[in-house]
Amino acid sequence: MFHIGRLSTVDLEEEITPEEDIVRSRPKEIPHNEKLLSLKFESLDYDNSENQLFLEEERRMSHMGFRCLEITRWVICGLIGFLTGLIACMIDIAVEKLAGYKYLAVKQNIEKYTELGGLSISLILWAVLNSAFVMLGSLAVAFLEPIAAGSGIPQIKCFLNGVKIPRVVRLKTLVIKVFGVICSVAGGLAVGKEGPMIHSGAVVAAGVSQGRSTSLKKDFKIFEYFRRDTEKRDFVSAGAAAGVSAAFGAPVGGVLFSLEEGASFWNQLLTWRIFFASMVSTFTLNFFLSIYHGKPGQLSSPGLINFGRFDSDVSSVFIVFRGVLGALFNIINYWLTIFRIRYIHRPCLQVMEAMLVAAVTATVSFAMIYFSNDCQPLGQDNTEEYPLQVFIYLLAELNLDLNIVYEMPNRSVICYIVHLQLFCADGEYNSMATAFFNTPERSVRSLFHNPPGTYNPVTLGVFTLAYFALAVWTYGLTVSAGVFIPSLLIGAAWGRLFGILLCIVLLTCAAAQLGGIVRMTLSLTVILVEATGNVTYGFPIMLVLMTAKIVGDYFIEGLYDVHIKLQSVPFLHWDAPPTSHWLTAREVMSSPVTCFNRVEKVGRIVDVLSNTSTNHNGFPVVSDTTENDEPGKICGLILRSQLIVLLKHKVFVERASSRLSQRKLQLKDFRDAYPRFPPIQSIHVSQDERECMMDLTEFMNPTPYTVPQETSLPRVFKLFRALGLRHLVVVDNENRVVGLVTRKDLARYHVGKDGLEELHLAQT
Amino acid sequence: MFHIGRLSTVDLEEEITPEEDIVRSRPKEIPHNEKLLSLKFESLDYDNSENQLFLEEERRMSHMGFRCLEITRWVICGLIGFLTGLIACMIDIAVEKLAGYKYLAVKQNIEKYTELGGLSISLILWAVLNSAFVMLGSLAVAFLEPIAAGSGIPQIKCFLNGVKIPRVVRLKTLVIKVFGVICSVAGGLAVGKEGPMIHSGAVVAAGVSQGRSTSLKKDFKIFEYFRRDTEKRDFVSAGAAAGVSAAFGAPVGGVLFSLEEGASFWNQLLTWRIFFASMVSTFTLNFFLSIYHGKPGQLSSPGLINFGRFDSDVSSVFIVFRGVLGALFNIINYWLTIFRIRYIHRPCLQVMEAMLVAAVTATVSFAMIYFSNDCQPLGQDNTEEYPLQVFIYLLAELNLDLNIVYEMPNRSVICYIVHLQLFCADGEYNSMATAFFNTPERSVRSLFHNPPGTYNPVTLGVFTLAYFALAVWTYGLTVSAGVFIPSLLIGAAWGRLFGILLCIVLLTCAAAQLGGIVRMTLSLTVILVEATGNVTYGFPIMLVLMTAKIVGDYFIEGLYDVHIKLQSVPFLHWDAPPTSHWLTAREVMSSPVTCFNRVEKVGRIVDVLSNTSTNHNGFPVVSDTTENDEPGKICGLILRSQLIVLLKHKVFVERASSRLSQRKLQLKDFRDAYPRFPPIQSIHVSQDERECMMDLTEFMNPTPYTVPQETSLPRVFKLFRALGLRHLVVVDNENRVVGLVTRKDLARYHVGKDGLEELHLAQT
Repeated sequence: MFHIGRLSTVDLEEEITPEEDIVRSRPKEIPHNEKLLSLKFESLDYDNSENQLFLEEERRMSHMGFRCLEITRWVICGLIGFLTGLIACMIDIAVEKLAGYKYLAVKQNIEKYTELGGLSISLILWAVLNSAFVMLGSLAVAFLEPIAAGSGIPQIKCFLNGVKIPRVVRLKTLVIKVFGVICSVAGGLAVGKEGPMIHSGAVVAAGVSQGRSTSLKKDFKIFEYFRRDTEKRDFVSAGAAAGVSAAFGAPVGGVLFSLEEGASFWNQLLTWRIFFASMVSTFTLNFFLSIYHGKPGQLSSPGLINFGRFDSDVSSVFIVFRGVLGALFNIINYWLTIFRIRYIHRPCLQVMEAMLVAAVTATVSFAMIYFSNDCQPLGQDNTEEYPLQVFIYLLAELNLDLNIVYEMPNRSVICYIVHLQLFCADGEYNSMATAFFNTPERSVRSLFHNPPGTYNPVTLGVFTLAYFALAVWTYGLTVSAGVFIPSLLIGAAWGRLFGILLCIVLLTCAAAQLGGIVRMTLSLTVILVEATGNVTYGFPIMLVLMTAKIVGDYFIEGLYDVHIKLQSVPFLHWDAPPTSHWLTAREVMSSPVTCFNRVEKVGRIVDVLSNTSTNHNGFPVVSDTTENDEPGKICGLILRSQLIVLLKHKVFVERASSRLSQRKLQLKDFRDAYPRFPPIQSIHVSQDERECMMDLTEFMNPTPYTVPQETSLPRVFKLFRALGLRHLVVVDNENRVVGLVTRKDLARYHVGKDGLEELHLAQT
Repeated sequence: MFHIGRLSTVDLEEEITPEEDIVRSRPKEIPHNEKLLSLKFESLDYDNSENQLFLEEERRMSHMGFRCLEITRWVICGLIGFLTGLIACMIDIAVEKLAGYKYLAVKQNIEKYTELGGLSISLILWAVLNSAFVMLGSLAVAFLEPIAAGSGIPQIKCFLNGVKIPRVVRLKTLVIKVFGVICSVAGGLAVGKEGPMIHSGAVVAAGVSQGRSTSLKKDFKIFEYFRRDTEKRDFVSAGAAAGVSAAFGAPVGGVLFSLEEGASFWNQLLTWRIFFASMVSTFTLNFFLSIYHGKPGQLSSPGLINFGRFDSDVSSVFIVFRGVLGALFNIINYWLTIFRIRYIHRPCLQVMEAMLVAAVTATVSFAMIYFSNDCQPLGQDNTEEYPLQVFIYLLAELNLDLNIVYEMPNRSVICYIVHLQLFCADGEYNSMATAFFNTPERSVRSLFHNPPGTYNPVTLGVFTLAYFALAVWTYGLTVSAGVFIPSLLIGAAWGRLFGILLCIVLLTCAAAQLGGIVRMTLSLTVILVEATGNVTYGFPIMLVLMTAKIVGDYFIEGLYDVHIKLQSVPFLHWDAPPTSHWLTAREVMSSPVTCFNRVEKVGRIVDVLSNTSTNHNGFPVVSDTTENDEPGKICGLILRSQLIVLLKHKVFVERASSRLSQRKLQLKDFRDAYPRFPPIQSIHVSQDERECMMDLTEFMNPTPYTVPQETSLPRVFKLFRALGLRHLVVVDNENRVVGLVTRKDLARYHVGKDGLEELHLAQT
């Protein structure tokens, strides 16, 4: 019998390659760096462990049973869509109510003090109100659930990719996220609420599909079949799609988002379920919002965001190379994030920064509205020249100073544009206030739909620069926030600024800015097309997004990718780096590997699992017939989580006789422990028990995928990615285990400036 | 050394399972039957053969080289989109011209003979004209390229799935297809032109991406890198998507169609390229059609089919269970196809049947128009009540008896509805003629958009039944034809018939009929949504399609699947049958396997390849160190096509010394022979050469995917499907080859009425 301790990939003492020395020499120098790959993230098992228990269960199941399962999946997806829609509806109503109250308070105050000359009091009121909202949100995020910060899209991307980000799909995260996003939008930050919606949808999906809440300690004893990573991922995809769908009213875009980010193996039925969840979500949001607005059945609110409907013809395609600005955004944000990671890591500091940003945003807005004094007359005359239908249903509900400048006579749709009167005479409106003193969506709509001549270039230029700076600063704060709408807003403002008044140009500028920042081009196009309700712009939008992506990629990666990299997440991209054909499994794999025998001593298992320096999660099981010191032949693969359940239930060979009366360990026991398996430390194994033997045959996956050592990296990568593997065993031509490839081994390689680069592994 | 002849899966002498006896007892009884699986179809290699040559080439390539390749892929996709758009444009113009001339001739004749009482002459003229068109198309299809018959969608589905349908992507097929579809649509058959467009797009893609035409013997010496199955498949996906996009103006639908049918491993970049091709295709069609119509730059013709734009609100969702009728269509068509396969297999008979159908269609139409006499007054008054925008741009070009009944005053779009006057007094129009005497698209538009009261129920009922019968009869004829538009037409007519005049109901009925017949639900929804230019109907359409699918599936599979089954194609569905966990690789694999040694005698290779009873395409290569009679350890996999190229170039060990001056065999030599590798019979090997040895090391794939014998069928299936494999080697725990799993071995199992069924294999 042989015991080989598998070296951790961090523990580099025995690594041969000379590059590794460099790694070792500077592991702690830069705590966060895009040249590092963190080892703190575990992977998810998207490949089923087809052990005997599983096969027995599947074989017992009749054809009817599979059909019932399928129906259950549909029901769950419907439920996910419904709940996500409800959450979107709730966020929407809450934000509008809070923003309405805030506006009312500030406006009354301004009116009161304009004559008395104490405008600074108004400013302070405004800043305090905003800071208070942001403080609430930021406090909740920083102290209760830091993972709820930001848009959540990078985290969901990682989850679907197979990286387990701790606590990302918990109920608590959802609650904090929803609360946080309401606060930050109501607090006037330069943020949107779409990213948080996507995250919320994913959490809902992860919760509903498991039929229980671990946080609330409530098990409904349903959907037990779905308690494993593979099934959960499918539902989370559906949830994310439902989130997109609720945020933009773009069900197809939602499906494509999920597929772009999540799916590795495309399955028609899965896609169809995802689509169903998206549709239900849009429909639910629609339904409840129309009831809320007193127009039940009208269903004119397909999503939280609606750019209005564009009807004009496209006669010229105008492409603006906006990728550069998107890249600038990302670069500044990148340095800012580095700065934050180094210096602003205490929660109190984070809350204070968030409040500071809120106060600065309020001050900047106030100052600009005050000094610009760009009052425009409200005109009824120019509506005729402007053939765009606009329906900004949300605003109808706000008790704001609405000036209905444009209502199409023979239409059933209600069309409003908000023009704020702040600091202007009656019959005039303040265009800077219109651009600034609205939630970002409303500003986008205003930029898209207001008649030509609404804004003067100086106003717009100043607004654009200020807003750009604020948006860069805001993204990455410890608040729940999305970057989608701010990007669109900056883009639309640029479009207006350059004086080209065709809405197509506005839209493409907006798309380009967004594309430059986010680089999620395919689903983005569909989302924008769906949100505008017009396929005619599809082609120009696509061209623009493509250009923005190409130009932007030349400088820096997309914003989400930048943040994923800064977190040092072992993210697997679509393909292996193109120049990686030089590498084979032999170079890539971790070796030697800790293996277990088919019948293994409990003591050894406990020791291996307890070894904190090598926190392995998968162990090849080898046949214990080998006499000499050779590595054994592979006969299975067992996971840490499975071993822990086995230890907990004391499934030892010596107890088999006494266990005759006891029930046999079933798949249910593994499912009950999923996904929060107890740590090894919590399991007590007595000295007597350490001498017992454990038979792993029944519980290991007897047919793990294996590759020979000569397999090239792209081939290993493809197998890994297509099947969603967590461990891939490398064998020699005698089927003996010689190495193990995990996500970290593959994510290490990436294309840098000088060809293939190897990231350093670190425990941070 | 050992030589084991691998048994053909047809040659069942040594199979153990008792069911096989039944197979053998009735192999020729029923020549075509859905319980058979044909062995005449070869598979495609969607897994790269990463042999030394390939790896060397990849390793030589710089990072810049990969970038250039990527750019080339984009250029090709753009080209594919452009050419597909052009073809769509050509078909469109040709059909309109021909149909216009035909209508003119018939109408003049009717006018002439209505007074003289010789109407039968008009009927004969009509029937003869139609039959003549159809005869031309049918002759071309039956005698020149039978594969061009039908819609082509089943064939493209198969190609993307990995089944090589002979001649399906050749230039000749394209030419015949285009000619055929023009003839059959102009000939008044109950067919559409979308299926053929999809097929055309695929052929264009397969041709353009290879940079040469084997048919025309012209090699442009470009795009050589793409001469392998994997790359070709990606381009064909793009081509099919471009086809959908051109046919429906639905680029996103096109992408989803391709993914639904083709992609196994979803890749963001690939999808993005597919989307690009789709966009270019729509844009091209749009651009040229607007030039043709004298309105360059207006781009109001996004696709061949446009249902007009629906603007009304949806206040009630009405779901019609139309799956039953779709199933009826499929069942009748199924029996008809069986009948055709048995009795109408000679080309002359096929042409005659096609002509008969054309004549009957003309006669039925004529009789119904004549006897119905359902004349409706042309009214200007009811246009006000009818708030639908309609743009039937195509009709503006026809010199028909157009009655412009509806033109919105303040719009830039031109709105026409065709009302035919046949047999009616001036100021009236014949509603039956309107329904019948148009190309199907126009009829669909007319049904969607004509004001209420246009059709009386009897007219509609008779029309629907007659058209249903004609459509069933027509699909499967030896003409190029699509089933999309006819299904929509029948559905729309049913919707009208039931007296519910909301366009939403019409649309859902149409969608349901189509969904009932075709069952391609996800991309179908998107296509319909995009074609109507309105996302509001998305949810009801999806619900209806889902219902239609569920109801229809209860009776019979989708039309395309029925036809694929009737062809006994080894098609791999998304998942293994649910109850197949009982089976393992051991039961599924073919065994024993013909293996080659790493250095093999030329004589043996020639003998194995020449053996017509076992037409194998992949051979495991085993290490030739084994002394005893055991099977050898796997060390690679080599394909028939590779061996043939090696034989052709006489790459023998004995010649290595003399070859020093000669150039080494390169990947280029394999690419030049792709895809039409010469048969083994055409390669002459002398008796001396038979004694030579061949070293396969450099050319075999050294790391084929392998599985142990205990792997369950679903696991094998997932690996096979996700990676697009053609051969999967089954090994024992010593890595010795024990079996080989191919497509046929997996496609054999399917779920029948009584659980898992095994299809019989046959050489037909």
